[in-house]
Amino acid sequence: MTQTDSYPLLSRIHSPEDIRGWSTDELSSLAEEMRAFLLESVSRTGGHLAANLGTVELTIALHHVFNTPEDRLVWDVGHQSYPHKILSGRRDAMKSLRQKGGLAGFPKRDESCFDCFGVGHSSTSISAALGMALGARQQGERRKSVAIIGDGAMTAGMAFEALNHAGDEKADLVVVLNDNNMSISANVGALNRHLASLLSGPMYSSMREGSKRVLNHMPPMREFMRRAEEHVKGMIVPSTLFEELGLNYFGPVDGHDVNGLVKMLRNIYTMEGPILLHVVTHKGRGYAPAEEDPCTYHGVGSFDPNQGIQGGKGGGSPTYTQVFGQWLCDQAEADERMVAITPAMSEGSGMTAYVERFPDRYHDVGIAEQHAITLAAGMACEGVKPVVAIYSSFLQRGYDQLIHDVALQNLPVLFAVDRAGVVGPDGPTHAGSFDISFLRCIPNMVIMAPADENECRRMLSTGFLLDQPAAVRYPRGKGPGVLPEAGLIPLPVGQAEVRRRGKGVAILAFGTPLAQALDVGERLGATVINMRFVKPLDEQRVLEAAREHDLLVTVEDNVVAGGAGSAVAECLASHDIAVRLLHLGLPDRFQSHGTREELLTDAGLDTDSIESAIRKRLGPQACAGAAGGVISEQIGQV
Amino acid sequence: MTQTDSYPLLSRIHSPEDIRGWSTDELSSLAEEMRAFLLESVSRTGGHLAANLGTVELTIALHHVFNTPEDRLVWDVGHQSYPHKILSGRRDAMKSLRQKGGLAGFPKRDESCFDCFGVGHSSTSISAALGMALGARQQGERRKSVAIIGDGAMTAGMAFEALNHAGDEKADLVVVLNDNNMSISANVGALNRHLASLLSGPMYSSMREGSKRVLNHMPPMREFMRRAEEHVKGMIVPSTLFEELGLNYFGPVDGHDVNGLVKMLRNIYTMEGPILLHVVTHKGRGYAPAEEDPCTYHGVGSFDPNQGIQGGKGGGSPTYTQVFGQWLCDQAEADERMVAITPAMSEGSGMTAYVERFPDRYHDVGIAEQHAITLAAGMACEGVKPVVAIYSSFLQRGYDQLIHDVALQNLPVLFAVDRAGVVGPDGPTHAGSFDISFLRCIPNMVIMAPADENECRRMLSTGFLLDQPAAVRYPRGKGPGVLPEAGLIPLPVGQAEVRRRGKGVAILAFGTPLAQALDVGERLGATVINMRFVKPLDEQRVLEAAREHDLLVTVEDNVVAGGAGSAVAECLASHDIAVRLLHLGLPDRFQSHGTREELLTDAGLDTDSIESAIRKRLGPQACAGAAGGVISEQIGQV
Repeated sequence: MTQTDSYPLLSRIHSPEDIRGWSTDELSSLAEEMRAFLLESVSRTGGHLAANLGTVELTIALHHVFNTPEDRLVWDVGHQSYPHKILSGRRDAMKSLRQKGGLAGFPKRDESCFDCFGVGHSSTSISAALGMALGARQQGERRKSVAIIGDGAMTAGMAFEALNHAGDEKADLVVVLNDNNMSISANVGALNRHLASLLSGPMYSSMREGSKRVLNHMPPMREFMRRAEEHVKGMIVPSTLFEELGLNYFGPVDGHDVNGLVKMLRNIYTMEGPILLHVVTHKGRGYAPAEEDPCTYHGVGSFDPNQGIQGGKGGGSPTYTQVFGQWLCDQAEADERMVAITPAMSEGSGMTAYVERFPDRYHDVGIAEQHAITLAAGMACEGVKPVVAIYSSFLQRGYDQLIHDVALQNLPVLFAVDRAGVVGPDGPTHAGSFDISFLRCIPNMVIMAPADENECRRMLSTGFLLDQPAAVRYPRGKGPGVLPEAGLIPLPVGQAEVRRRGKGVAILAFGTPLAQALDVGERLGATVINMRFVKPLDEQRVLEAAREHDLLVTVEDNVVAGGAGSAVAECLASHDIAVRLLHLGLPDRFQSHGTREELLTDAGLDTDSIESAIRKRLGPQACAGAAGGVISEQIGQV
Repeated sequence: MTQTDSYPLLSRIHSPEDIRGWSTDELSSLAEEMRAFLLESVSRTGGHLAANLGTVELTIALHHVFNTPEDRLVWDVGHQSYPHKILSGRRDAMKSLRQKGGLAGFPKRDESCFDCFGVGHSSTSISAALGMALGARQQGERRKSVAIIGDGAMTAGMAFEALNHAGDEKADLVVVLNDNNMSISANVGALNRHLASLLSGPMYSSMREGSKRVLNHMPPMREFMRRAEEHVKGMIVPSTLFEELGLNYFGPVDGHDVNGLVKMLRNIYTMEGPILLHVVTHKGRGYAPAEEDPCTYHGVGSFDPNQGIQGGKGGGSPTYTQVFGQWLCDQAEADERMVAITPAMSEGSGMTAYVERFPDRYHDVGIAEQHAITLAAGMACEGVKPVVAIYSSFLQRGYDQLIHDVALQNLPVLFAVDRAGVVGPDGPTHAGSFDISFLRCIPNMVIMAPADENECRRMLSTGFLLDQPAAVRYPRGKGPGVLPEAGLIPLPVGQAEVRRRGKGVAILAFGTPLAQALDVGERLGATVINMRFVKPLDEQRVLEAAREHDLLVTVEDNVVAGGAGSAVAECLASHDIAVRLLHLGLPDRFQSHGTREELLTDAGLDTDSIESAIRKRLGPQACAGAAGGVISEQIGQV
């Protein structure tokens, strides 16, 4: 059975243009097929599933009504864009999804002219689509710009900023609010309650839709009726926040009724000015296990669709995320001042057990990194001890708050920075390539990079005890398998650990690349130092290494520019020491998607690449295979 | 006439406790006195005037009703906090306002226990006050936390994020919306229209206030009445956005009526849960020139209050801000694809003439840096050419958007980064100390630092023509006085310019410290290179300098950590060149407030300090006074 046979409608589609003339019955059948294809394809490759099952009809209706790619569709976050990719000529490529050289897991401008804006982080779509609408207007071009955004993403301030501006402009912008009552974690906040209240008035909305179409053609009457309408509305549903921001609100409509969606979109297509269409969808729609547990089916590995996802997510040694989750519970138990904050990433950050055990000391603030960090600063002023769990790439969203509210006031906030360094299949938007550079330049910060699981736990304990801001940055996935100790034992601040004493070359490793550095040290007979602290740097150890070796090599999974290696260079310069220095780290380009291993090799951070970079630097004469050295005393450890 | 005689009421106040027992008549008289004192004091020292004249009664009423410092007052932005400083024991110190070692222009935790949260950037207050409220609750302490925030600051997404969270919590938080219909630039956006609409229903609000007090004590009835009230409300004023977010809305009330304010605040004091109080004030209140022109009287130098501020802001050579403003007009004239975006800083960024001449290609998005940058990215996708005018410290607010939406997609957005480096009296929150570090680590960015006015203009032209993101970072105030050329002539990308050829020492200057570097070069007989580009770095010139000199010195007005000097170190390491290197730049601490000159001297960036740092590094034997060298050929210039 070939794919072509199983999907007769899909096989006729090479571009969205192919479905423009289809009847809504045909579109409904297409939705069925699309769903089956998604399930088959994603269960093989892994990827995002539940969100895509939820947007099948919406995507079909949008491409049926709007003249893509001339009209612009901007998908917020983009993990719901698979149906869009499939309709726009990329069905065959779906088998390469999120693999090196294959389809990206998110819209990407390089990949297709239908991907008019690259996404990955939440809540950018309204700003981008409004920019496109204003750009088109400036050039006298008539087209629609559409942002499709989830209710979770609406909690981000950036979405509000964009709505506030859009409501003030007369641009041709359509915001489709894809309301599935579910961001990645359970949704929170007052906005969510507001949306729920809107759902109670469907009769009103259809009534209003009918009358508005007529009234549109009667300008003077229209304003009077608008006011009258507002009064009546007060009796039926509360007026919407969106109308108060100046958008024309339509909905709520059933996001799984192709017929209704097409009708509504056709109406909207004829209108001008900013419009918000409220569509209600269900994550996981059509696949019972995903409907029942959309969280488990949000991002999946490969699985058998007939069986569903089985059991827990693998055994063995814990991931860094799990190490954090366990430490969080233990530290909370030990110190009742602790409080934990997440911007809508409790599960991804390993906080599930903590949430259950310490609900009073847990705050999920929604997708709101800026607020999360200043909230923590406010808490720290009162003597509680906040821990902010955040991904490296999302910490970029709260950068000013970290500088202006936490570091400047030297407040004891601990940042547990997950997904630092090379991340993998999610690609460049989710890569944690920059945090060492953008944190290192900020005064008062302590920055730690654990080389193994136990060190991660000890660094978290260290940061928690400090009376100043601190960050522990650790990667996605598993470490080398060093079982964390039970206690809450801090490390001495700013002390590196010599792991191997050798000659000629000293490798200064920051964080997880220590494993590769130790292998290379073995091969080259080099000294290997586990630096542990990016800031404060162990200057004594650096100067000692410079005195005793001919070449210093720094290794980190952050960009070289401004990274930990550059801290070593600054230290040497400040002590007037000129020594040969080789910086190994991520290159000055955005990462692609692929496995962690592939990306590390691309960046020259696998063992062989590190070895050959050092050998190349040393030249043919030196250090060819001196494999001396002993695994050393654990200097600097408590 | 001593101050004490002129201000009999103020002279009795050493702490807010002193006014707790006062009658509202006394408080009204105090307000009069406070206003006179403010005018006298600020017209002598310079500082923020109009905003403080607007918050006199509000501040008095808050300190009269709330039990400060036990109850927390968080002032948003903080330029309206002078009355607060005066009431809380700092009246005498007002004469040292914004001067080195004197009172800070903003609340600062180090300065007073009444300054419970340091501010400077907009829109942090709700997050901070909510953090304090939740922190207090966690510790079982009962106190009020109050955020006082302007309508302009409400446009920032961060404020929305905080409101969304606050509406979901039952914390004892009071948000005082200080609605003066005026942020620094004219206010924009749909939110502003919404606030204006609320002002049309004062009768309703007083009616509602009365009934609510009674209903508070009748729980089962209350919910029914709340719904009934919502229906009635629809007939009178539109329901407020704040109520939809879950806050209990009161107002609008007259912010210059002490009596009314005190009554309202006393009521609110007895209530629980999140409350929003809408207060209407007038910037500049009580001083006619400031009432008529609050923009001119927002931030002032010293002036004669009887005369008012006279004429233009000085003649002579233009400031960098003015150079940008002129370039913006000229470039817009030359290229109709250009569009300019400001996050509520049109005047501060020098855009006044541009706004008048090119209103269709101008977008003030409100205090919304995140949206501003992604909007620009969306526009760039459509082929228009956006210029984002932004202060260095506010660019931190849009950092993720710069990375994720602009740089990752390699979109041609030009950032005109004003107030880079040492800023002065506004202190650490407004210092532009970090931009080179946090921009340099981002792939695809071109980063330029002009050493004079003409170079600034040429760099703006350079960035505008590039097909990738670029930033020109220039300081506050005037440069050395090099008149900008009329044309729009770009510079060759990545080319430095040797300004002086000398021996032994090569000084590599980035941006405005070139002036000091040239003086030092003269004194020491050193080579001086105007680096111009932080990224791409002129590697050829750096390597050449390393070959031909014994010591390289980098000078920049950015922190050393990860800065331009560290780019030089990375370059040398990547070419396996070990040379003596001295990094001069801002130290690893937050700047204080003071004049630019004082702060530069503090940082060791004045001519004498640079000279002595180099002499110290060279040691007593070398280079003592070799004053050779010639002002050189202008290599690398077009």
